[in-house]
Amino acid sequence: MSVGHEAQPSPSVSDLFRNAFRRHPAGLAIISAAGPNGPAGILSSSVASVSLDPPALSFTISTLTSSAQIVRSADTVVVHLLDAGDLKLARTFATPGSVRFGDDMAWDYLPTGEPFLLETKAQIRCRQLGHLDVGNSSIVAAEVLDVTQGESTALPLVYSNRAFHIFHEFPIR
Amino acid sequence: MSVGHEAQPSPSVSDLFRNAFRRHPAGLAIISAAGPNGPAGILSSSVASVSLDPPALSFTISTLTSSAQIVRSADTVVVHLLDAGDLKLARTFATPGSVRFGDDMAWDYLPTGEPFLLETKAQIRCRQLGHLDVGNSSIVAAEVLDVTQGESTALPLVYSNRAFHIFHEFPIR
Repeated sequence: MSVGHEAQPSPSVSDLFRNAFRRHPAGLAIISAAGPNGPAGILSSSVASVSLDPPALSFTISTLTSSAQIVRSADTVVVHLLDAGDLKLARTFATPGSVRFGDDMAWDYLPTGEPFLLETKAQIRCRQLGHLDVGNSSIVAAEVLDVTQGESTALPLVYSNRAFHIFHEFPIR
Repeated sequence: MSVGHEAQPSPSVSDLFRNAFRRHPAGLAIISAAGPNGPAGILSSSVASVSLDPPALSFTISTLTSSAQIVRSADTVVVHLLDAGDLKLARTFATPGSVRFGDDMAWDYLPTGEPFLLETKAQIRCRQLGHLDVGNSSIVAAEVLDVTQGESTALPLVYSNRAFHIFHEFPIR
């Protein structure tokens, strides 16, 4: 007869990584592209500036959803940087199966063909330069073609600990 | 990143991009690696989670500094996610020419050879999987090998508008 404690499975590296990263704060963006059956868009917390010469940025997408696949395979995309005024948009694009680019959403096509969200503070049109595929995800490098910036004075939006936050900008002196 | 003061009749795409991105908030990390002449490290606002299977992350580095070149060419690196308790470290690594990994900094070598900062809340050891080079920058994909997480309860640190901020976590309900 053996008397012992059941061995507790120790957390996997993936579990530890997810847990460590949960409170790493990030800005939010919606990335849109034209698909064969209409516009597609995804919410992203991974948009980062890469270079100013050439102007370029990066983002990561899961390739498991149809919206992400459309964005992944598009030649050009629009990256919308979100602020607190875009909270409703962020929630919509965070919800699986939600209606996007519907009649109650302020959007249009650019002359160059990409769908874009009219009320966001900054729209960055990009051409994809290359990909690094890892598992079911793809890291995208994209050159910035043009930038449209509105007059929004709303505070930034931050994603952390699985929740949206309005970021009160009190810098440390 | 260059800061220019040349008079221009209309802003370039790079100027517009830099301006639009200035208030896009980001978490902060220090990425360290062993170099031929000792430890090297850089401050990064571009660390993003890429995948959980395999566990992987990405970051972007300029390849113009010697520290960045050491990180870029290392097989393995340590990504330290920073919180408000790491403000002094963040300032040191943000300052060109500052003394890093000196006697007054709490650091050591891991058994696997990488330098790491003992007092940071989370240390993620990674192996570089691939690069996407854009201009003088390099986007790095790296697989997570192991994660060490301390007991820090400090608030996250956010970089926005060229300043460090302590991020008060009041989620929007």
